[in-house]
Amino acid sequence: MCRRLIIISFTWGDVDCNSLADKFGTPLYVYDESVINSRCNEIEQDFLQKWDNTFAYYASKAFSIKYMTRIIKNHGMGLDVVSEGELLTALHAGFPAEKIELHGNAKSFYDINSAVKSGVGRFIIDNIQELELLAKVSHDNNFVANVLFRVTPDVKTDTHAHISTGVKGSKFGFPIEGDMLNEAVKFALNDDYINSQGIHFHVGSQLFEPVSHLEALRKIIKLMLKLKRNLNFITRELNFGGGFGARINPKIEHVALKNFTDPLMQMLESECKANDLLRPRAAIESGRWIVSEAGITLYTVENVKRLPGILYIAVNGGMSDNPRYALYGAEYEAVNVNNPDGEIYNPEGRVSIVGKCCESGDILIDDAKISYTKPGDIIAIYNTGAYNFSMASNYNKLLRPAVIFANNGEANLKVERQTYEDLLKGELL
Amino acid sequence: MCRRLIIISFTWGDVDCNSLADKFGTPLYVYDESVINSRCNEIEQDFLQKWDNTFAYYASKAFSIKYMTRIIKNHGMGLDVVSEGELLTALHAGFPAEKIELHGNAKSFYDINSAVKSGVGRFIIDNIQELELLAKVSHDNNFVANVLFRVTPDVKTDTHAHISTGVKGSKFGFPIEGDMLNEAVKFALNDDYINSQGIHFHVGSQLFEPVSHLEALRKIIKLMLKLKRNLNFITRELNFGGGFGARINPKIEHVALKNFTDPLMQMLESECKANDLLRPRAAIESGRWIVSEAGITLYTVENVKRLPGILYIAVNGGMSDNPRYALYGAEYEAVNVNNPDGEIYNPEGRVSIVGKCCESGDILIDDAKISYTKPGDIIAIYNTGAYNFSMASNYNKLLRPAVIFANNGEANLKVERQTYEDLLKGELL
Repeated sequence: MCRRLIIISFTWGDVDCNSLADKFGTPLYVYDESVINSRCNEIEQDFLQKWDNTFAYYASKAFSIKYMTRIIKNHGMGLDVVSEGELLTALHAGFPAEKIELHGNAKSFYDINSAVKSGVGRFIIDNIQELELLAKVSHDNNFVANVLFRVTPDVKTDTHAHISTGVKGSKFGFPIEGDMLNEAVKFALNDDYINSQGIHFHVGSQLFEPVSHLEALRKIIKLMLKLKRNLNFITRELNFGGGFGARINPKIEHVALKNFTDPLMQMLESECKANDLLRPRAAIESGRWIVSEAGITLYTVENVKRLPGILYIAVNGGMSDNPRYALYGAEYEAVNVNNPDGEIYNPEGRVSIVGKCCESGDILIDDAKISYTKPGDIIAIYNTGAYNFSMASNYNKLLRPAVIFANNGEANLKVERQTYEDLLKGELL
Repeated sequence: MCRRLIIISFTWGDVDCNSLADKFGTPLYVYDESVINSRCNEIEQDFLQKWDNTFAYYASKAFSIKYMTRIIKNHGMGLDVVSEGELLTALHAGFPAEKIELHGNAKSFYDINSAVKSGVGRFIIDNIQELELLAKVSHDNNFVANVLFRVTPDVKTDTHAHISTGVKGSKFGFPIEGDMLNEAVKFALNDDYINSQGIHFHVGSQLFEPVSHLEALRKIIKLMLKLKRNLNFITRELNFGGGFGARINPKIEHVALKNFTDPLMQMLESECKANDLLRPRAAIESGRWIVSEAGITLYTVENVKRLPGILYIAVNGGMSDNPRYALYGAEYEAVNVNNPDGEIYNPEGRVSIVGKCCESGDILIDDAKISYTKPGDIIAIYNTGAYNFSMASNYNKLLRPAVIFANNGEANLKVERQTYEDLLKGELL
């Protein structure tokens, strides 16, 4: 009888994660490019091709690097940017400005000026003051700005208060009731450098059912009717926002985009018909849904400490590369790359995966289900592709990790690890 | 009768803040150097000179830049660092390694190796695994490492759970009960490259009364007795940690250090005498108390939005330069630099100062008391000298603000504002 030693190896994008950790060091952000591509393909098939007169934006605040905007460009999609920094990242990668929309509740002169000068395709207007500023900058540059008005539909969402954006009294946009929106629309209709395209709404983040989106759309249809009747404003574009959820691990069922877009489009078409409204061009914005599940973070275990009732696995990163537990109590799942199929460790007690920042709140997973883990092991945390790199800090003077894109067994460095030289750059004694 | 126009100008470190905003842009971190110096002088007078055989460390994780470590060096104080990055920052500024102590719950080989090679004076030991690693690295470098054992005294503190570190089951240090500490002390006493100096404890952050410190010290004295009796381990040094609170604004009463150190030293001296223990060298570590009140952040108001029941003042920074409201619900106070003495704005309703990040949780002050404020005004938020620069991120690709040190009317740039070039550095297409 012949025995073979089978090395069970944990891979991501068909690349062995132990080798990645060896070659590039840890902590390390690793993206499976095929997951991003499959999301973009799903958007194309189940939304853009299925429904006429539609468009899709990637919300780059979820993860904004040049290479990511390049992938989005190759899929023919648009890009949602929220600052001059995100805009420049995209432009440096050759992203066409006319497919970019500029968001933000406190756009500065610099944001607006850069966007006008580069010819950004859409401005999502948050308030009358920025609309006046945009009109002035557009006039000075002989540019006509296409605008959508961001409206707060006042619907509740089943998510963390910090990422629930569509409620009444939100800092974002115009309330759906009251005179504020009318005033802005009137200003826009009377300004030669503003082209009023339509309406934008966003209900919140990390949603798994279309309930809030549909409730919001119902209110928006009424608003479209009112704006047509009172101000002769035709909604030619309607942006549904995003908020489509990402799974905590790749084993549970994928959240299909059409669960949101099909009922939204059906309602939009039937309600426009019933109310004799032009069916506007419909757009979605998705960040987390496209990129979060594609990313994992690899860490090296520094020590394992068994206390009464709790076992701590301390790793060489933490809230500096992923502050989402500290910010929202976000839940994550981990796998031990060196022992991916082992039985659950310490099944009677709690296993807490904590970071190396000098702070009790520096927790990555409070109650982790992971196999036996020892110092030196590499662990991977799933679903860190969104709002991890983009929210990373140098807290405790830890260096921002490198970013790898893995695809069909090939690993490519897309962002180098920060250096101590980078960290001290700009300091004067 | 002669009338004169009096321009009421808000200054910090005797420097006009409007001019600072004009010259260096906003957001801007501004430190009044005299506040830092007066804290260090207070430490010297009320602790180091008042009590024999004492020492004080600045906890650099609160705010670690080269110039800050230079100030601390000039006061003859020590430095607490929690990573290789903080260590290198100090060494680059010429800080003497022997006055540095290395902290951390997950010290890496790199942290330990750098510290050993540069001759760091103290290692605060968190767990047996890192002690073994330190012994090995010290042996390889023919270096004797002075160590203190970090002990969790298991006392409750009246602070946010994320910054309450001394409780049972904390990720930090050795439990005061059980065998874990004994095992480490025995290992250390038997290793030629480890010199066991004593004990370290830390109860939590942002405390205004010495209750928890004293409760902890009472337990630590018993521990010192037990370690002497059972293992013949003499505690020659005792580090009380920090946690001394910072005021929300400069108008309320200063938290005197001696409110903590006097009762701690009295208890230490009397208890050591009563128990026939060597009175150890006593040390404190203070970060926030030294530097937080010295710092303000200047922002430009982008827009002011009046909604039913709430007035939003949106500024050109936010959770990217100060994530502490989002993380802990931290409270701040603000002043309008252009109207510092005006009556409180909107006294009947809530005024919320929000940031420009695309997130509902991006709030700086939820319920601000500030005078009438209009777009273009400069506002200052007090007490941002600690854990703001150090926790800053590039969320939404916003640039990390510059740092100014103001002193007797002179403003000096100490950290340049990040550039978009910095932001995109290391990206590969």
